[in-house]
Amino acid sequence: MSLTFERFSADTSGGRLGRLTTPHGEVLTPMFMPVGTRASVKGMPPFLLDAAGATIVLSNTFHLGLRPGSGLIRNLGGLHQFMGWKRPILTDSGGFQVFSLKGLRRVSEEGIAFRSPVDGAEIFLSPERSVEIQEELGVDIAMALDELVPGDAPRAVMEAAMERTTRWARRCKTAKKRESTAIFGIVQGGMEEDLRARSAADLNQLDLEGYAAGGFSVGEKKETFRRMAAYTASLMPQGKPRYLMGVGTPLDLVEASGWGYDLFDCVLPTRNARNGYLFTSAGPVIIKNAEHIREESALDGACPCWGCRHVSRAYLNHLYRADDPTGLVLNTLHNLTFYLGLMARIRTAIGEGTLPALRVEIAAAYEKVEGGEVGR
Amino acid sequence: MSLTFERFSADTSGGRLGRLTTPHGEVLTPMFMPVGTRASVKGMPPFLLDAAGATIVLSNTFHLGLRPGSGLIRNLGGLHQFMGWKRPILTDSGGFQVFSLKGLRRVSEEGIAFRSPVDGAEIFLSPERSVEIQEELGVDIAMALDELVPGDAPRAVMEAAMERTTRWARRCKTAKKRESTAIFGIVQGGMEEDLRARSAADLNQLDLEGYAAGGFSVGEKKETFRRMAAYTASLMPQGKPRYLMGVGTPLDLVEASGWGYDLFDCVLPTRNARNGYLFTSAGPVIIKNAEHIREESALDGACPCWGCRHVSRAYLNHLYRADDPTGLVLNTLHNLTFYLGLMARIRTAIGEGTLPALRVEIAAAYEKVEGGEVGR
Repeated sequence: MSLTFERFSADTSGGRLGRLTTPHGEVLTPMFMPVGTRASVKGMPPFLLDAAGATIVLSNTFHLGLRPGSGLIRNLGGLHQFMGWKRPILTDSGGFQVFSLKGLRRVSEEGIAFRSPVDGAEIFLSPERSVEIQEELGVDIAMALDELVPGDAPRAVMEAAMERTTRWARRCKTAKKRESTAIFGIVQGGMEEDLRARSAADLNQLDLEGYAAGGFSVGEKKETFRRMAAYTASLMPQGKPRYLMGVGTPLDLVEASGWGYDLFDCVLPTRNARNGYLFTSAGPVIIKNAEHIREESALDGACPCWGCRHVSRAYLNHLYRADDPTGLVLNTLHNLTFYLGLMARIRTAIGEGTLPALRVEIAAAYEKVEGGEVGR
Repeated sequence: MSLTFERFSADTSGGRLGRLTTPHGEVLTPMFMPVGTRASVKGMPPFLLDAAGATIVLSNTFHLGLRPGSGLIRNLGGLHQFMGWKRPILTDSGGFQVFSLKGLRRVSEEGIAFRSPVDGAEIFLSPERSVEIQEELGVDIAMALDELVPGDAPRAVMEAAMERTTRWARRCKTAKKRESTAIFGIVQGGMEEDLRARSAADLNQLDLEGYAAGGFSVGEKKETFRRMAAYTASLMPQGKPRYLMGVGTPLDLVEASGWGYDLFDCVLPTRNARNGYLFTSAGPVIIKNAEHIREESALDGACPCWGCRHVSRAYLNHLYRADDPTGLVLNTLHNLTFYLGLMARIRTAIGEGTLPALRVEIAAAYEKVEGGEVGR
């Protein structure tokens, strides 16, 4: 079987409640996907992801393809079995990581040539190879390989990359062999509305199983991001899942759910947890700060995670200062519980038509949080 | 209430089945105590210690006294509440850590002066202050401050330190204010039988709530350790718990249980887990080794821990090579599950009179494992 998506309802603001059904189970949407780059969400074995409320995770074609290799993972029964995670997995195509290599890559119509940062070997990532790797991993959702360009690239460069991304998406669809791995296309086009519109229209023609919005969090202004990301969602088919890549802050998630996106991923909750930056219902808490050294209260009295129910801010401060890995575990478990709890609140609010009120609440706590990290 | 110890039975080889009852619950003995030096067993929140089968942990007067400070922990409700661990806690006195500072300390009859390795401040640890710190922490079992000397010290130095340790134990007993913190004395005397005998006899006079054997794993030969540790156990009262400090390997635990010890602690399972050295029913496994890169089988098919039930050696190898903290969590959970499972088997074997057969089995897998790390 492959992927199905049911849309239950849309509130008046554009938010959608849905259910994504995959070979590895269901995902209620809108949903946030914790990032498990190297077949692991750092410090979170799958039983802790379950405890946090995760129902789908993102992993990484580029990193797994280099080490330990997708062939090895295939021979061991696929990525789900490899990492002991029984629920759905989405992998990105590798395009973003190769883009980040800068000087080490060479892009042509055929694909992307680069040197492995692991051992220096020459590697060629074509759309076909990207699909092949993701099928070897046996994931539920594979992303089509896209060409990324810098956020400040000239329009002609943007346009050419967008058009190539569409051609590559077609090649990905043609290359697809595995029924149970769905392919999502990625809408590009920078901050130009007409390019976004053309990208979406051309990709829609390919009748892919889902669509993603790429090319955000590349340095654009927040208002530009809001306008373009919302516009891009409106270009996507109603009946298919929509994924906003690499986003975002708590406020981004509330807003983008209102624009009609269904899936999100970001390193913010996990990476920030490791840096002692914790998300709470009252706003961010920098747990290493001296104000927490003697603080008896819980990190977040409204949070159901183990740490919030059992230990004080003083203890989390102590663990951070002692560089104790228990702190990493508790902080990550907390931040993911917060993010996934927020997604549950978003779904409830969409169902009840109260998303604008939730936006006001989250904006009060998180308006100033930029943290526009790209989640891959 | 304070500590009680019931001895259920002794098998013909000297092994004892018992139950230690503390203000924070019961501990079936013989039992191994995971080491949580800084109010945390690294990477193991208490719910994972529960999952591994831990019923008592060891923490550290010296480290907690320096940071975050025992007064802070007292003000936050004590060490149990601080770290979110509801079961019994034993703390060592700090003597061993101060001993390890070498050049930075000055020992007199009054106590030990040293410079804080955290901030260079001059600190004085007397027997009275050691008890006070442990009572501020609110632990179930406090260790009396002892004076340690190098394993190769002359007999006269050994003897003087042993006698001082006894005088300090008396001062600890006098200083004790808190009914619900029991105090254990530490038998010293190096590798000299008559000194051990005198140490034990003098401490027994103090009628302390339990007794420990200290001064092992200081470079002595394995056979000397066996002879002296077994001899030291025989000097302790039958009706009180006996604790062999800083020991040991799986084989040590089986053997020392047969000598009549009830409690053990060692950093071996936790520290080795972080270094990728894993204990299995078939002997040690160095998970980073290349032989495990493609190995589909579980680390230990006989182990009930999450990793052994859900992932392959190849995955643990991958996590180790990627330096992913999920590996630290899974490896530590495994090693503690192995150690605590071994203790359960030891208790069963004592009850059934089959400890010698268990010794043969464990010796076959672990005879060659030295790893005589001091567990504090």
